[in-house]
Amino acid sequence: MIPTIEWDAKTRTVKLIDQTKLPGHLEYITASTHAEIGRIIKNMNIRGAPAIGVAAAFGMVLAAQENQNQNFEHFIKSMHQAANLLKNTRPTAINLFWAIKRMLKIIPAEKSDIEQITERLLEEALQMWQEDINCNKAIGKHGASLLSDNDVVLTHCNAGSLATVLYGTALAPIRWAIEEEKKKIEVIADETRPRLQGARLTAWELNYDKIPVKIETDNTAGLLMRKGLVQKIIVGADRIVSDAVFNKIGTYMLAIVAKYHNIPFYVAAPSSTLALEQKESDVIIEQRDGQFEVAKIMGIATKPIAPNGVECINFAFDATPMELVTAIITEDGVFSPKELLAHYL
Amino acid sequence: MIPTIEWDAKTRTVKLIDQTKLPGHLEYITASTHAEIGRIIKNMNIRGAPAIGVAAAFGMVLAAQENQNQNFEHFIKSMHQAANLLKNTRPTAINLFWAIKRMLKIIPAEKSDIEQITERLLEEALQMWQEDINCNKAIGKHGASLLSDNDVVLTHCNAGSLATVLYGTALAPIRWAIEEEKKKIEVIADETRPRLQGARLTAWELNYDKIPVKIETDNTAGLLMRKGLVQKIIVGADRIVSDAVFNKIGTYMLAIVAKYHNIPFYVAAPSSTLALEQKESDVIIEQRDGQFEVAKIMGIATKPIAPNGVECINFAFDATPMELVTAIITEDGVFSPKELLAHYL
Repeated sequence: MIPTIEWDAKTRTVKLIDQTKLPGHLEYITASTHAEIGRIIKNMNIRGAPAIGVAAAFGMVLAAQENQNQNFEHFIKSMHQAANLLKNTRPTAINLFWAIKRMLKIIPAEKSDIEQITERLLEEALQMWQEDINCNKAIGKHGASLLSDNDVVLTHCNAGSLATVLYGTALAPIRWAIEEEKKKIEVIADETRPRLQGARLTAWELNYDKIPVKIETDNTAGLLMRKGLVQKIIVGADRIVSDAVFNKIGTYMLAIVAKYHNIPFYVAAPSSTLALEQKESDVIIEQRDGQFEVAKIMGIATKPIAPNGVECINFAFDATPMELVTAIITEDGVFSPKELLAHYL
Repeated sequence: MIPTIEWDAKTRTVKLIDQTKLPGHLEYITASTHAEIGRIIKNMNIRGAPAIGVAAAFGMVLAAQENQNQNFEHFIKSMHQAANLLKNTRPTAINLFWAIKRMLKIIPAEKSDIEQITERLLEEALQMWQEDINCNKAIGKHGASLLSDNDVVLTHCNAGSLATVLYGTALAPIRWAIEEEKKKIEVIADETRPRLQGARLTAWELNYDKIPVKIETDNTAGLLMRKGLVQKIIVGADRIVSDAVFNKIGTYMLAIVAKYHNIPFYVAAPSSTLALEQKESDVIIEQRDGQFEVAKIMGIATKPIAPNGVECINFAFDATPMELVTAIITEDGVFSPKELLAHYL
C-alpha cells in the first residue's frame, strides 16, 4: 500500500499517484498550485470521495502559499476564489465541499498574519490526511466483523486505498479481515464501466498487496450470485442521504440483484460522506461525456464502439434506496439504515 | 435493412456482413468452403443464434460442393465430418445443432446421386433462409401488440437483423410497431460487455434504419428504470429450456432489475430456439478468453484495462429463470412461461 496523496514538506508541494496511468504504470504528479489541484481533480488523475477531499484541502494550502504577499483583504478574496474553483471540479462528491468548508473555517475574519494562517491551513490539511487513514482503519475494523473466513466479497468501482489517502473504505474491511484477523478472503471486482476503475484500480491495488482478486464485467455479477460464488457485497459511497446511497453507476443494479439472492449489501464510507439532511430527490447526478467515456472508452479504444451520431447516455452515479442496504459501515460502527439516522441525526 | 447472409447463385458462394468491422465499416466476406464458414462462426464475423443456424446450413451446402467427385461412402463421411466441424464452433447456440441436424436429414442413407443431394441441400438451406425472415416478421407482428405508442424499449446485446437473416427477433416487434403500426418507439441499447454487440451492432442497424436509439453502459439500466425512462424490455435468446432463458451475459441482471421496477420483460425468439426437454442445470455456459475480450476489449484497447496476471471472469451467457420472464414471443404467438410449455411440449 502506497499513500495516494502526500504533502512534501521540503518542496511544499503535493505528490499524488496519477491514477489515469494505472494499471500499466505507477507514476506520480507534483502539484504546486491550487489550479493544478483543480485540474487534477477534474481530469480524475485523483478520484474517490475521501481522496478528493484531502486533495482539495491541500489545494487550499497551495492557494494560501500563492497569496503570501497580498494584503489581507485580497488574500481572503483569493482564498474564496480558490475555494470556488476547487468546488466546481466535481459536482457529486460531498467530501469535496466538506473539506473546503473546513479549511475556510480556519481563516479568521479579522486581519491576521497570512503566514500564520497558511501554517494553520497546512496543519488542518495534514490532520485531515491523518484522520482519513485513522477513519479508514476504523471502518476496516468494524466492517471486518461482518466477514467470515473463506468469504468471496464482490465490490464495485474503487473505494480502496486509491480512493482515499490510504487503506480504502469498501476495501478496508477486507484488508482488516485479512491482515489483522487472518481470515481468508477473496475479492471479485466489477470492471465498472465506463471508466473501468474496478479493473484498473481495485484489481491493481489488491494485486499489488497480494490480496486474491478477479475481475468481471459488471453484468456478470448476477450469474456469480446465482452460482453461489459471492457471499457479501461491499461498496463505497460518494454521498449518503437520508433515504439513499449515491455511488458509482451500477451500484443500484448490484443492490437489487443482491437482494434477489439474499446476499448482504454493505456500504462502507466515512461519516464525512453523510448528508442526512438531504434526500435522494435533492441530488443532481453528474452526467459526463458519453462520446469520450462510453464510445471511445476514455480514449483507450482505437476505434469508437458506437456508430457516428448515436448518443451515449452517461450518468456517473446512481442512487440506491436504503431498503436495499443491509448496513452502513462508518468509522463509528456498523449501522442499519434506521440506526444510521438515529445515530447521526 | 440488409440481409446478414446471402447465397450467391452465380458463384455458388455465401456472402456475409463482416460484423467484426461494424460499426465503423460495412464490409462483406465471401465463403466458398465449409471450413471458412466454421472459422467465420467461431471468430464471430457472423453471430446471433438464427444467423449462425442459416450460416451452418449453407456451410453444409459448401461441404457437399467440395465433395462432388467423391464416391458415395466418402461423401457421407465427409458430410458428417463437416457437420462435426460446424457443430464445434460455438457451444451454446441451439440453432446451430438444429440446422445441421435438419441438413443431415436430407442426405439419404442409400446410395444416391451426389449432385442431386447437393441441390436438395441448397434448397433446404434457402428454405431455412426464407423461413427465418418469415419467422422474424411473425415474431414482429405478435410482439408489436405488446408495445404502446411512445414506449421506450430497452434491449440487450444484438438480437436484431444482424443476428438473423433479416428483421431480427428482439428488434422485430419494434420494427413492426414502427413500420406497420406507425407507433412511435425509441430504443435504448445496452452496450453489452464484453463484446459490445449492443453498441456496435444494435445501435448501428437501428441508426441505419433511422429508428431512434441511444446507447447506455449495461450498469445504467437500473437508473433509467428508476427514473421511469424505460417502459418495456425485449431481449433475444440463445436457448430456451423448460425453466430458464439462456441469453447474453447480463440478461439475468436486467430481468431481476425489471421485476423490481414492475417493468415487463419479454423474450423474443423463434421456436427453433426452444429446447424444452432440457432444464437450466443441463446447460454448460461457454466461457471465453477473458484476457482478450475483457482486458483487451477484444483487441480495440490500446492498453489492457486489467493489471498483468489478474484473471478476468468471462461467461458468455447467463440463465434467466422463467419467474422473471413476463412472456415469450415466438412466430406462433405470445406465451407466458406456463403457456409456452403447454403449447410446445
